[in-house]
Amino acid sequence: MGRLIRLLIAYDGTGYSGWQRQHHAPSIQGTIEESLARICGHPVTLHGAGRTDAGVHALGMVAHFQTTAGHPLAAFCRGLSSLLPPQIRILDAREASAGFHSRFSALAKTYRYDFFVGPVLCPTRRLYTAQFRGSFDLEAVQAGMALLTGTHDFSSFEGSGSRNRDEKAGRGGVRTIYRIDCRPGTGEGYFVLRVTGDGFLRHMVRNIAGTLVFVGQGRIRPAALQEILAARDRRRAGPTAPAQGLFLEKIYYSQEELDRELAS
Amino acid sequence: MGRLIRLLIAYDGTGYSGWQRQHHAPSIQGTIEESLARICGHPVTLHGAGRTDAGVHALGMVAHFQTTAGHPLAAFCRGLSSLLPPQIRILDAREASAGFHSRFSALAKTYRYDFFVGPVLCPTRRLYTAQFRGSFDLEAVQAGMALLTGTHDFSSFEGSGSRNRDEKAGRGGVRTIYRIDCRPGTGEGYFVLRVTGDGFLRHMVRNIAGTLVFVGQGRIRPAALQEILAARDRRRAGPTAPAQGLFLEKIYYSQEELDRELAS
Repeated sequence: MGRLIRLLIAYDGTGYSGWQRQHHAPSIQGTIEESLARICGHPVTLHGAGRTDAGVHALGMVAHFQTTAGHPLAAFCRGLSSLLPPQIRILDAREASAGFHSRFSALAKTYRYDFFVGPVLCPTRRLYTAQFRGSFDLEAVQAGMALLTGTHDFSSFEGSGSRNRDEKAGRGGVRTIYRIDCRPGTGEGYFVLRVTGDGFLRHMVRNIAGTLVFVGQGRIRPAALQEILAARDRRRAGPTAPAQGLFLEKIYYSQEELDRELAS
Repeated sequence: MGRLIRLLIAYDGTGYSGWQRQHHAPSIQGTIEESLARICGHPVTLHGAGRTDAGVHALGMVAHFQTTAGHPLAAFCRGLSSLLPPQIRILDAREASAGFHSRFSALAKTYRYDFFVGPVLCPTRRLYTAQFRGSFDLEAVQAGMALLTGTHDFSSFEGSGSRNRDEKAGRGGVRTIYRIDCRPGTGEGYFVLRVTGDGFLRHMVRNIAGTLVFVGQGRIRPAALQEILAARDRRRAGPTAPAQGLFLEKIYYSQEELDRELAS
């Protein structure tokens, strides 16, 4: 079976069709697999901890693969980075213990959503920040977030599409959000929303972001989030926020690491 | 003569040949002039406060133009922005007082240089941050900066090329740096260098940045900056730092505004 290698990956999702390999569009997974095959001398399947949509970025995606190649780990870190386009960088490569699986071993993930509520978004931030025009009441958003924290059925925040792996897991739309916060970012009108949870439905973070922005704009009352959750109906929540504001920030594989994050 | 309009402009210089209009390459000036001509119904010459090189960004470029068009100012702000590519945004448009000239009326400018000294630059920051590998001693840089502050002949930091407007002004390579500082930026290994001065020679900020990075890496002693200045020889200073880290941040037209910045 050879070695099991675990990669920590950062990427700029601009111009990519998303994480998942596709036949006729450049994907992050496919791009890394091609370079890995060149290094390893055999075809490689790279298993990511999750999929990111077209245009979504990652600061800490984790993926694993098997190889019979005997290269030192640096070949899968600096060596692999040097073959990749500048949009993709390998931050770390290490041997994984037997049984490790980037998706199934993950305890939790943190996503970050960067957005701007002023009139003119700085052009040098436009590829990494979503813009929402109109008023914005951070306190209303914070009241709304409190109602989303904890274990709920998040079906109202689930994008349409397949849910096969979740159905297999038997938990339907039920997920636990450990922490969600929204703070002013760098520069007036810029905000950073961060959500840490045990798993996320398709488009869930973008649907939460779009709904919370509606709360901030006064278009949804904070208290209505309880009714929206209870309805389990996508049409009740706000719109899906644009992809470019979303970053997969971190994936947790040990309770200790997760506890440290939640205590910080 | 019609009206004199003053614009405040932000742009992402990635993919542009620089501020100055060119025949066969997309420039910021040329792109805005084309859209302005459509709005005004007559050809427009846009006079910028300075030129930025290919790949250099601006958060607060100032430029002026004359027009006979009677449009409200919003036409030259939101209206103009809506005609421009997303790389360029008009932040403000106002009537300028008679005699105002974006370049000649400017008292001072602030440039910002964003750089990273760690092993792997985050892919989503690569278009707006320069990377320098190796060690970095911020205290050495700060000692070096102290020697650059004040009025000096900065010829050792001047890129080759035309200097016609400066020769006219009769001050040769003499410029005054009011303030220069270098602070940790967002994220480990990221730094922000800021320089405020009464004027800048061609490539001066990038040459200062490249030289200070050499100081931080221990390749130039901080005290040597005095000798480098005295030599008035470009070959004595460090390399020209890459364009993508440089931002024209602000231009000052009143002493009050400048004093406020320097006191902050």
